Amino acid sequence: MEENKPLILVANDDGITSRGIRHLVKLMQKLGEVVVVAPDSPQSGKGHAITIGDTLRLDEAEIFDGVQAYTCSGTPADCVKLAKHYVLKDRQPDLVVSGINHGSNTSISVLYSGTMSAAIEAAIEDLPAIGFSLCDYDHRAELDHADDIILDIAKNVLKNGLPKGVALNVNIPPKQNERLKGYKICRQARARWQEEFNQRFDPYGRRYFWMAGNFVNFDKSEDNDEWVIANNYASVVPCLFDLTAHHAISMLNESWENK
Amino acid sequence: MEENKPLILVANDDGITSRGIRHLVKLMQKLGEVVVVAPDSPQSGKGHAITIGDTLRLDEAEIFDGVQAYTCSGTPADCVKLAKHYVLKDRQPDLVVSGINHGSNTSISVLYSGTMSAAIEAAIEDLPAIGFSLCDYDHRAELDHADDIILDIAKNVLKNGLPKGVALNVNIPPKQNERLKGYKICRQARARWQEEFNQRFDPYGRRYFWMAGNFVNFDKSEDNDEWVIANNYASVVPCLFDLTAHHAISMLNESWENK
Repeated sequence: MEENKPLILVANDDGITSRGIRHLVKLMQKLGEVVVVAPDSPQSGKGHAITIGDTLRLDEAEIFDGVQAYTCSGTPADCVKLAKHYVLKDRQPDLVVSGINHGSNTSISVLYSGTMSAAIEAAIEDLPAIGFSLCDYDHRAELDHADDIILDIAKNVLKNGLPKGVALNVNIPPKQNERLKGYKICRQARARWQEEFNQRFDPYGRRYFWMAGNFVNFDKSEDNDEWVIANNYASVVPCLFDLTAHHAISMLNESWENK
Repeated sequence: MEENKPLILVANDDGITSRGIRHLVKLMQKLGEVVVVAPDSPQSGKGHAITIGDTLRLDEAEIFDGVQAYTCSGTPADCVKLAKHYVLKDRQPDLVVSGINHGSNTSISVLYSGTMSAAIEAAIEDLPAIGFSLCDYDHRAELDHADDIILDIAKNVLKNGLPKGVALNVNIPPKQNERLKGYKICRQARARWQEEFNQRFDPYGRRYFWMAGNFVNFDKSEDNDEWVIANNYASVVPCLFDLTAHHAISMLNESWENK
């Protein structure tokens, strides 16, 4: 009986001791056998970075009850690579989940997100994968209001798989008085971060900066993740790792000279 | 007269002292006024990482003749953000170029590439942008065989702009006896890295790993960057930063239960 349980790999970018991964591990234990490979330190904003030209550490961590777990010194993408090719080797996970991230990964933030890079790395390896993020930057934020939805989405992916080359970017609104309305499958909103650089001087008089900024949403329609979150649904954006702008190939071929 | 010269921002991921950026700066000086903001240390494989939760340094570097240049302690994407919002402020670059990278960024490597993250970050900011990479990992490799092609592509982008939300990923074959045949606008090949983890032990008996691996190309057609490079053309892949798998939205809506 035990052998028929699906194998679920859990990673994240906030590090193995974060509350988000702990919550996700508990949820996934309801669905299958869980193995965790997660960064030994926070990796927020690491995008799809990988460790080349430097060494990687991988150590067992006995911090989850009844779960095989490892800390990795690298990035979220490194964690998935090490899990697939070293920790699990001949065992193929039935599902890879990443998160729950403390903070939003809607819209353009998918590019900067370590949470989603773990999921996209799994998709590159032909594994069904989901990144979960909570749109609340408070590390003590409540995490349990979307349990049913997280389990529903994971069950659907375990049952149906995902289209080839696709990973899911799931964002969850912060807990509110009104109950979460459900989830909507939608597209990435057209929005970006408008950076401001806060200039300071260190005790030696040398200048440094903090990057800060505001999120600016240019998207006025209702079929995108920003609208969905603002209306108290979880958003599910299917994401590609093939970045080709197919429509642009013919446009450029027509307009360019000297080819 | 001087005022009408286009303003060209140059970034890279190998760091400001690399031969590749030096070569690109010289080429771009033929087309306009050049400003450089580049990492103060190598940032290969950093993907679309940005620096959050840590400080950034930005210092003037007088290492290019007649060119305003800065080193940045952050990632390639940080360099473009600092250049746009702090160094150039009210001046808008007419073109952003990144590279020339020492090593290939074809196919799936576009995701791991710091070179391309600088270009994609510029595209997010609505700036026409191109990443240039040489498919030769030797840091002493010859860089001059594609000068005409690099200038042609940059001139075409300066003249025609690029479709909204698109950055170009240009890869150049290594210098060969046969002259470079030209360039082809094409799509990202279906290929991935098959990792192998080389296990070693440090002088204290503790285990560590080197990530190594082979590039595996599953793509048998001729309209992709791997074929193009193998046939001694430069490849030009237009890349998107909207990752939405639009075809998958209706597929998932039809097959999923409990929405």
